[in-house]
Amino acid sequence: MSTRVPVVENILSANDRLAEANRARLDAAGVFAINLMASPGAGKTSLILRTIRALKGHWHIAVVEGDLASTLDADRVAAEGVPSVQIATGGACHLDAAMIQSSLDQLPLEGVDLLIVENVGNLVCPAEFRLGVHRNVLIASVPEGDDKPYKYPPMYRGVDAVVLNKIDVLPAFDFDLDYFRRGVEALNPGVRIFPLSCKTGEGLDTWLTWLEEELRAYKERQNVSGSSGTDR
Amino acid sequence: MSTRVPVVENILSANDRLAEANRARLDAAGVFAINLMASPGAGKTSLILRTIRALKGHWHIAVVEGDLASTLDADRVAAEGVPSVQIATGGACHLDAAMIQSSLDQLPLEGVDLLIVENVGNLVCPAEFRLGVHRNVLIASVPEGDDKPYKYPPMYRGVDAVVLNKIDVLPAFDFDLDYFRRGVEALNPGVRIFPLSCKTGEGLDTWLTWLEEELRAYKERQNVSGSSGTDR
Repeated sequence: MSTRVPVVENILSANDRLAEANRARLDAAGVFAINLMASPGAGKTSLILRTIRALKGHWHIAVVEGDLASTLDADRVAAEGVPSVQIATGGACHLDAAMIQSSLDQLPLEGVDLLIVENVGNLVCPAEFRLGVHRNVLIASVPEGDDKPYKYPPMYRGVDAVVLNKIDVLPAFDFDLDYFRRGVEALNPGVRIFPLSCKTGEGLDTWLTWLEEELRAYKERQNVSGSSGTDR
Repeated sequence: MSTRVPVVENILSANDRLAEANRARLDAAGVFAINLMASPGAGKTSLILRTIRALKGHWHIAVVEGDLASTLDADRVAAEGVPSVQIATGGACHLDAAMIQSSLDQLPLEGVDLLIVENVGNLVCPAEFRLGVHRNVLIASVPEGDDKPYKYPPMYRGVDAVVLNKIDVLPAFDFDLDYFRRGVEALNPGVRIFPLSCKTGEGLDTWLTWLEEELRAYKERQNVSGSSGTDR
């Protein structure tokens, strides 16, 4: 077993180099990219669908869908009429930068403002693999329980925002929002937390406002640096 | 990347050998062992606590608790007064046979009838690593959604029973039990499915009956083969 750690380190280092190349390619095209990570069933696809519907009149959106096997999620996204690519990981427990690289080959990047990547449903492994995106977002959900930051710290530590989905079922669960917030804050001080419900729409406006602000700020930086000519 | 597959294969093969050794050790002591796998927050610890409370008057139970970091679950189990061992995986996304081997060193195996292993909360990676237990059980939960068998097939394919927890919140979710059952059945024909609620107790009797039947049948086989002298 003594050879395992060096092997993993080499893989991660190769992955990081590819992630940097992905980032450069996204920046050259002026594409702001976010990576959504979550446990299975927390609501990654639901949040993507809500986000597409709210923003597609204002921004050009594309989606990369990571899944072990099925095209269920990719089909739902494609039905929204935005460009999408399906990555079937064939059992792999996370997306890596090489998979994103292949996806970028298949997307019309020059016309895209916002690229949303849906990672494999997994609260552990995706935290280890940088993809080259600009923001990493974790989607937690009320039924998972308020203790998840305490039990899965690496994922909570590494993200730029935490969405807490399914707040419409708060009354049915023993979920202490303050305990959850304290757990997140201890691992990732100052990180934004967005309690919302993709089912009822409650709280979505705060998430969408943040996302659009981040996207606009990115576009402004791009225009200043001149690395991407975008007219919006 | 061409060296990755052989390396993983070697690790898995080493793991399988250790799993066989674990099984032999459990059988020598007459310990029936089950491995509980699930997404984060599906209710592994809740099912363990319910099972301990129902069966500890009749059987000697011990628990191995796998967690990335915290002792939250191990503390709850220890409060039930059964022998327990905590495995802090330090970020690793699954338990492996070597971790179980170390745990067995710390348990009074000769006095134990039923060993319950709680795996790391992860619907992908634990499916790949045999531990040496007698039964593998997957805990799904209603809030995760009825499409999980279709989206995470490897885990559903490899288990001996599927618990569907949190049926008390069925009215709050769009969960089609028939669609879920068909998905499970397609991957794992004839596998037992136990819809239940660890919160209300509904359906627990069916799970407990199955578990005790499996345990009794194991004990009878052990007595016939004479490999373990246990008086229950």
